[in-house]
Amino acid sequence: MRIALDAMGGDHGPATVVPAAVAALRQHPDLHLILVGKEEALEKTLASYNGVRSDRLAIRHASQEVGMDEVPSQALRTKKDSSLRVAIDLVKAGAADACVSAGNTGALVATARFVLKMLPGIERPAICSAMPATRGHSHVLDLGANVDSTPEQLLQFALMGVALTSAVDNKPAPSVALLNVGVEEIKGHDQVKGAAALLAHSNLNYVGFVEGDDIYEGAVDVIVCDGFVGNIALKASEGVARMLMRFARDEFLRTPLSRLAAWVSKPVLRAVMERLDPRQYNGASLLGLRGIVIKSHGGADAISFANAIEEAMLEVKKGVPERISGELQVIFDERRAV
Amino acid sequence: MRIALDAMGGDHGPATVVPAAVAALRQHPDLHLILVGKEEALEKTLASYNGVRSDRLAIRHASQEVGMDEVPSQALRTKKDSSLRVAIDLVKAGAADACVSAGNTGALVATARFVLKMLPGIERPAICSAMPATRGHSHVLDLGANVDSTPEQLLQFALMGVALTSAVDNKPAPSVALLNVGVEEIKGHDQVKGAAALLAHSNLNYVGFVEGDDIYEGAVDVIVCDGFVGNIALKASEGVARMLMRFARDEFLRTPLSRLAAWVSKPVLRAVMERLDPRQYNGASLLGLRGIVIKSHGGADAISFANAIEEAMLEVKKGVPERISGELQVIFDERRAV
Repeated sequence: MRIALDAMGGDHGPATVVPAAVAALRQHPDLHLILVGKEEALEKTLASYNGVRSDRLAIRHASQEVGMDEVPSQALRTKKDSSLRVAIDLVKAGAADACVSAGNTGALVATARFVLKMLPGIERPAICSAMPATRGHSHVLDLGANVDSTPEQLLQFALMGVALTSAVDNKPAPSVALLNVGVEEIKGHDQVKGAAALLAHSNLNYVGFVEGDDIYEGAVDVIVCDGFVGNIALKASEGVARMLMRFARDEFLRTPLSRLAAWVSKPVLRAVMERLDPRQYNGASLLGLRGIVIKSHGGADAISFANAIEEAMLEVKKGVPERISGELQVIFDERRAV
Repeated sequence: MRIALDAMGGDHGPATVVPAAVAALRQHPDLHLILVGKEEALEKTLASYNGVRSDRLAIRHASQEVGMDEVPSQALRTKKDSSLRVAIDLVKAGAADACVSAGNTGALVATARFVLKMLPGIERPAICSAMPATRGHSHVLDLGANVDSTPEQLLQFALMGVALTSAVDNKPAPSVALLNVGVEEIKGHDQVKGAAALLAHSNLNYVGFVEGDDIYEGAVDVIVCDGFVGNIALKASEGVARMLMRFARDEFLRTPLSRLAAWVSKPVLRAVMERLDPRQYNGASLLGLRGIVIKSHGGADAISFANAIEEAMLEVKKGVPERISGELQVIFDERRAV
């Protein structure tokens, strides 16, 4: 298996991607990686990892970089030799089975869509990620590839989320719900009500509406929303978790006695952090494309980025795009049959 | 000051509202309260609080109740003698300066709008609440009175949030931002971009877009979004906080050693909880009406409900609806001047 890494993307570029690549290669003897980016910078970073240069690690030079705040349409037009673009080109050309980038999300979506094209029957890509929950996890999409979506597109997202979840979690018929402001049928706007009608008549295991707090219950396998709502819910969640941790740190550092309590509680607090460590959930899937593209968090560290590589490997192994096409075929067949 | 309480609303009805009323009367010698609901049930609950029956506590019988899952339009049509409706009627009639309800949100919004009417220049009510933040708090609206909103309505929400914040937080020119999926101007859908254009040309202290995690930073005084997004962001936040606390409890209870750590850390953990105690943030304002209506969380306990009464008192004292009308007048004058 061969995976292309956008080595210049994210807040830290090669400083994160190179050690993540080295760690992944050590762990997976069959894995081949292509570091895409400025050759000189990559060689230099690699040199600090003595003797890891193996025949399973290639460098592919790309002369440009896409800035984290660059306008996607402009990046697409003017950065044809960016690390982000070349990594996707390698997937298109069949030289890589998947690519991973921590770069500019908008540019990644626009470029992947332009280069790889959509799967037939899917209008828009969607960003899907597993989210931690009290019991297990749920896959949520769209987390921000789009700012609005039609009911038909929400149905397509549901189908993609189901295909992904059944593949990576080995679930035969994952349950799928729509994110709404209430669970009763009358709740919500036309878009979510329209999607509910389509889902109720699909062959998917549709269980109805869920509310924002249900994301973290884990009772439903796949939760569908438009990208505007998904992105804001995700970031609000990150914000509240960060605030809680700051409060806890403040209080544990306040007095000599509380610092003692912190010292005694260290293993417990570490266990809590591990259970919701965002690093283990790093690696969101850009679904709906004719190819596998994994988005890493921009601020990811090497451990997080390595998790995104793992996600890419898993999706290659499970053939996620083919699974989505398969699910689509069932829907098409059903509609034709009606 | 006289405040009407929907004593039958919420998950616990009189069991919560009556002790909250008793506590509020004890604390505020000038406060008069009207308990609205089934007289017999209220008398019975009151009887368990020996000797608190004062001339500042009246009971107003209402024969009906609105169920928490009842369809708002149906409640409005068929429950004309519900505790929720009668509490609002008392405000309309001038017999109460404000009302507080922990009842069905949709029914409360629909009934308040029908009975009290909107302030001139405001098309829709919005639910606004202070949210805890790392520094201070932010007022966020709409948290779910509407499922979609036009740019013009979002401008009106901004204005209402600013009027509320300047009144209750004594801030002369509160900063106001729009919740979006990114801070750059090109981000978001037409609705949020349209609102941004209106806000940029208003006399409000508009500071641009913020993202979901900024809600909990406290850097902006007022954050505006449509009710669909606001409700989901709020509930997702509640969900993640609840999950984190469950994880912490699990880990602290896991072994004898961790239970010892929990015992040592008790005062610290209590201090953390107090800083984000949702009870102190209970009491959301239903803004834009010709009258003051405060929504308490449905699951509120007596302490939370007492906080909602405090919020009502503060808004009466500060004349929040008049403040909103005043802000509107400035905008109207400006538009006429253009």
